[in-house]
Amino acid sequence: GDEASAAAATVRQQNLTKPPGSLGRLEEVAIWLARWQRREIPRLDQVTIAVFAGNHGIAERGVSAFPSEVTAQMVANFAAGGAAINQIAKLAGAELRVEPLELARPTRDFTMAPAMDGADFLVAFDTGWRTVPEQCDLLVVGEMGIANTTVAATLCAALMGGRGARWAGRGTGVDDAGLLRKRTTIDTALKIHRNLLDDPLAVAVALGGRELAAIAGAVLAARARSIPVLLDGFVATSAVLPLARLAPGGLAHCRAGHVSAELGHRELLRELALAPLLDLEMRLGEASGAGIAILLLRAALACHGGMATFAEAGVSGAG
Amino acid sequence: GDEASAAAATVRQQNLTKPPGSLGRLEEVAIWLARWQRREIPRLDQVTIAVFAGNHGIAERGVSAFPSEVTAQMVANFAAGGAAINQIAKLAGAELRVEPLELARPTRDFTMAPAMDGADFLVAFDTGWRTVPEQCDLLVVGEMGIANTTVAATLCAALMGGRGARWAGRGTGVDDAGLLRKRTTIDTALKIHRNLLDDPLAVAVALGGRELAAIAGAVLAARARSIPVLLDGFVATSAVLPLARLAPGGLAHCRAGHVSAELGHRELLRELALAPLLDLEMRLGEASGAGIAILLLRAALACHGGMATFAEAGVSGAG
Repeated sequence: GDEASAAAATVRQQNLTKPPGSLGRLEEVAIWLARWQRREIPRLDQVTIAVFAGNHGIAERGVSAFPSEVTAQMVANFAAGGAAINQIAKLAGAELRVEPLELARPTRDFTMAPAMDGADFLVAFDTGWRTVPEQCDLLVVGEMGIANTTVAATLCAALMGGRGARWAGRGTGVDDAGLLRKRTTIDTALKIHRNLLDDPLAVAVALGGRELAAIAGAVLAARARSIPVLLDGFVATSAVLPLARLAPGGLAHCRAGHVSAELGHRELLRELALAPLLDLEMRLGEASGAGIAILLLRAALACHGGMATFAEAGVSGAG
Repeated sequence: GDEASAAAATVRQQNLTKPPGSLGRLEEVAIWLARWQRREIPRLDQVTIAVFAGNHGIAERGVSAFPSEVTAQMVANFAAGGAAINQIAKLAGAELRVEPLELARPTRDFTMAPAMDGADFLVAFDTGWRTVPEQCDLLVVGEMGIANTTVAATLCAALMGGRGARWAGRGTGVDDAGLLRKRTTIDTALKIHRNLLDDPLAVAVALGGRELAAIAGAVLAARARSIPVLLDGFVATSAVLPLARLAPGGLAHCRAGHVSAELGHRELLRELALAPLLDLEMRLGEASGAGIAILLLRAALACHGGMATFAEAGVSGAG
């Protein structure tokens, strides 16, 4: 990030016709955008929402309320413009890029073997990296993948501690029996892979998924190009947990678009020191929560760039 | 409200291509808008933001960081398009109506006399009522008035109990000495007017302000016309507390646009059973928080009206 741009944006905020600090998070995100866009007055002309889709071997264990076919069906729905994220992207003035990742070849069931090998992971990571445009004012990352809240919960358990009972949530809406299967799946995976739990990259490969690897690749590409990032929900956030473990400060260009209703997301965000912009009890994924948060960034920049200063407006300052 | 429209909107939400309930508050507000607009698919073609401005006798007691002249200066800033709410209204596609209420004639200092008499109150209430258009899809109410967080805190103390220490916050940013003056002002007012604290309307007259009376009038006009309302921050919410006391259920057509950083707002919202849509640590007033929440309603309706159903998209339901 560029501290000079952030400092200039901070000074600008202090002169606008409002009590200092009274726009709260809107001030903070305007300055954050200035820092990473390297300009005092940031813009959101080119916003890219990247949604990565993957399938998971553990879906066979009955951990989701929906069958695996839904991943590809929802990718078709994205293409046809019928999903929530299509409506949100249009409203928020963002370009939607959907990247299905070998949906016909799910990862392996990680209760029995590593979900991926290094080559699988790198192909997905590279797809994510290449999805980020060279020129982009903001990247928003999200995902679609039946069974992937179990993947996210397993990553959190592996890297933050605790077992299935701490991290398994209802996802798209599993019943009590399904929730028990999620917990057991996570606990079994932790046991099978116990020798690699101190290696964040090995965890991302063996207990992750292709769409999560792609998110990690996209977020790292954004960092390389100084593009600010909005993270979506539990799964998207868990995908960057290994990055945070590998490089402290590695998520400074990211903000959490929202905190979802999925068990574990709030705790994961706290661990990553990411304060969510929205808390709307959403739990849909597909970048929907972070997509809505784009609107808040637009509001922040409308104020940052459009308001009069005390001097311009002839308004008295604090006495 | 119209329960048939709400029920139709609820059924519609259940058929859209997402796990039931996964859009969280967005589903709730779409159904709320359907109930009050009396249509299955609500719209936001005509959105009015009404900002009422007033001056207060208690400003003389040093309860604000800013001088009283700022109220009129900010009204001029609204007219010139330089304030935060101007930028937000434009972004949110809303019409901004600003109503200054006899700024040259502040209310009386309510530590010594009633702030208003019945006639003062009714004139302001009527101005608020007449500000609401006959045809309107959504009303957003906010305010501007130096010293009015002290008014709001006094109303809360009078109607909910507790003294100045419980309700006085930093407002636009008073220092410790100013905060102490706020507390003392509130405590004195409670003592002077102790005989009328069980009469919500008398409290609104004697301890309120013109811009608060206007907000009450506008919110009641909206109810009469079945127009849904977004409330802004601590002051705007305190203005409708007397209405809630006079008529249980009288705020069913209202939602809280946000919870502000001002001490007391969260507790006031809890009392009124209003769950805020946003929590951005804002404390600016002038309808800025609720104005941003319009964007969330637009997102809710974009999904409600634009998403494909499971049948249309050929997506499998929960197993």
